[in-house]
Amino acid sequence: MPEPKDVTTVACIGAGVIGGGWAAHFLARGYQVRAWDPAPDAAERLGRLVAAAWPALTELGLAEGASPDNLTVLPTLAEAVAGAGFVQESAPEDLDVKRRLLADIAEVTPDGVVIASSTSGYGMSEMQTEAATPERLVVGHPFNPPYLIPLVEVVGGKATEAWAVEWASEFYRHVGKSVITMDNELPGFIANRLQEALWREALHMVANGEATVEQIDTAITDGPGLRWPVHGPCLTFHLAGGEGGMAHMLDHFGPSLKAPWTRLDAPELTKRLRDDMVAGCEDEAGERSIADLVAERDRAIIAVQRAVEASRGGSGG
Amino acid sequence: MPEPKDVTTVACIGAGVIGGGWAAHFLARGYQVRAWDPAPDAAERLGRLVAAAWPALTELGLAEGASPDNLTVLPTLAEAVAGAGFVQESAPEDLDVKRRLLADIAEVTPDGVVIASSTSGYGMSEMQTEAATPERLVVGHPFNPPYLIPLVEVVGGKATEAWAVEWASEFYRHVGKSVITMDNELPGFIANRLQEALWREALHMVANGEATVEQIDTAITDGPGLRWPVHGPCLTFHLAGGEGGMAHMLDHFGPSLKAPWTRLDAPELTKRLRDDMVAGCEDEAGERSIADLVAERDRAIIAVQRAVEASRGGSGG
Repeated sequence: MPEPKDVTTVACIGAGVIGGGWAAHFLARGYQVRAWDPAPDAAERLGRLVAAAWPALTELGLAEGASPDNLTVLPTLAEAVAGAGFVQESAPEDLDVKRRLLADIAEVTPDGVVIASSTSGYGMSEMQTEAATPERLVVGHPFNPPYLIPLVEVVGGKATEAWAVEWASEFYRHVGKSVITMDNELPGFIANRLQEALWREALHMVANGEATVEQIDTAITDGPGLRWPVHGPCLTFHLAGGEGGMAHMLDHFGPSLKAPWTRLDAPELTKRLRDDMVAGCEDEAGERSIADLVAERDRAIIAVQRAVEASRGGSGG
Repeated sequence: MPEPKDVTTVACIGAGVIGGGWAAHFLARGYQVRAWDPAPDAAERLGRLVAAAWPALTELGLAEGASPDNLTVLPTLAEAVAGAGFVQESAPEDLDVKRRLLADIAEVTPDGVVIASSTSGYGMSEMQTEAATPERLVVGHPFNPPYLIPLVEVVGGKATEAWAVEWASEFYRHVGKSVITMDNELPGFIANRLQEALWREALHMVANGEATVEQIDTAITDGPGLRWPVHGPCLTFHLAGGEGGMAHMLDHFGPSLKAPWTRLDAPELTKRLRDDMVAGCEDEAGERSIADLVAERDRAIIAVQRAVEASRGGSGG
């Protein structure tokens, strides 16, 4: 098994939006990428996806030797994984397909090489059941587009060994990702659960004629969506409490948890949950006082708005 | 009743984070602001809140004649609203307090002047019950900080007349806000419903030991939170479907609506809901092709990340 930093070749299985996005990311970081997909036009599709991503990747800065020419689309799965130090599977979101494909990948991938699945929400425990070497199978869940959004959620299944989860986490960090390593399987992982709750509330509102698609998007782009890239939902509410932070916020606005403001019932705001939220926010804030965080938020919101405005419409980088 | 564009003086009732934020916004737009709060240290608190906001507002660009010196804190409510062309109420989130205060404000505010409440989620119908002139009472719900986040949700109650909702929407637009005018009352309005669904899922995860506060914030700041200020949740998923857009996304990923990825049950994905989502995304995209939107998203995500990074830590603008 290679060290994460010694890997030079990655196999990308699947030529969809996510598979192509991963290929673009690894190519930009200077890797040799070997790809496979059963579709007859896989090479053309991957070429198109990588080409579409390349201007953004160039703007971000390419690693030495990075080139779209380092992509090789192979006619078989076995050829694609040959010589790879890591395998990223990005097949369609279908449990049977994933299960079968991961078993096939495990069968032909050299011993000790970690195989990660881009699944949006299946647990590895249910996907690894047919694989002969399930101990090296992990979830490595990216966000679209994988070449720009840093987050990757890493979690193993019941048959996954701890070293594989650690290895994958370290490898993703090495290739520039922001990694959340989860101790336990959770359907939808963390980010998709948050996103999905918001999405389902949005769908309910459209289904009931309470809001239009455009009102929903405007509500986010011109509202809380401007705060979330800065501090996330918890630290954002830490500031809503003024100098009292999350403690004041929960003690003061706690009752609104009982309000019918969403179709999702709130948990009981126990003393323990309150204290966990407060301690979590204080840990995350670290040395930064509330005043520091407010100033940081204000600078960032202005900069984010300007960044989005400058990026709309025009063709310039 | 003045035209929205002819207003020169605004009354801000309440000296908390939201009331102070509104005062700062109106001051920066060149208005005379008359404020009142029953707290004995109201003037000091408002002065501090405006001073904290002023660097950001200066960076954004002040209107001609704008100055913190145009804030006058009055000893009584009646003096504060005297001569005001618009009143913004930002009292604590307590229904009895709001009800009583709005009645008091309506009693002393000149005829025909619109009075807006910053309430986070009460309906105007339940808040206007004690007011003698409920026809001019509307909700004007901002997001923290009101001097930077553009969104204001405007909606009337059962006793509100249509002209007041229109007047308030026009006035907020005139002072630089992004306005969503809602036809019907909905608890939590639109943005808070979306935000609250995400927040409750986050609290459930912490309560169950499924994720930490820091993991939740990282999941958003380094994940979907980077896309939301660009396109909002609907247009973001329009791109997740590749060239097929929202139609492909719903037809393909529709089954994940049944997955246990959040504690919020999904609505039935009827043909009508599907078609409404597709038509809404296509309307919103307008002339922009999927490829245009992808390029726009990529430019914006890079710019947003850089904006957030540059705003962290350092004290520079």
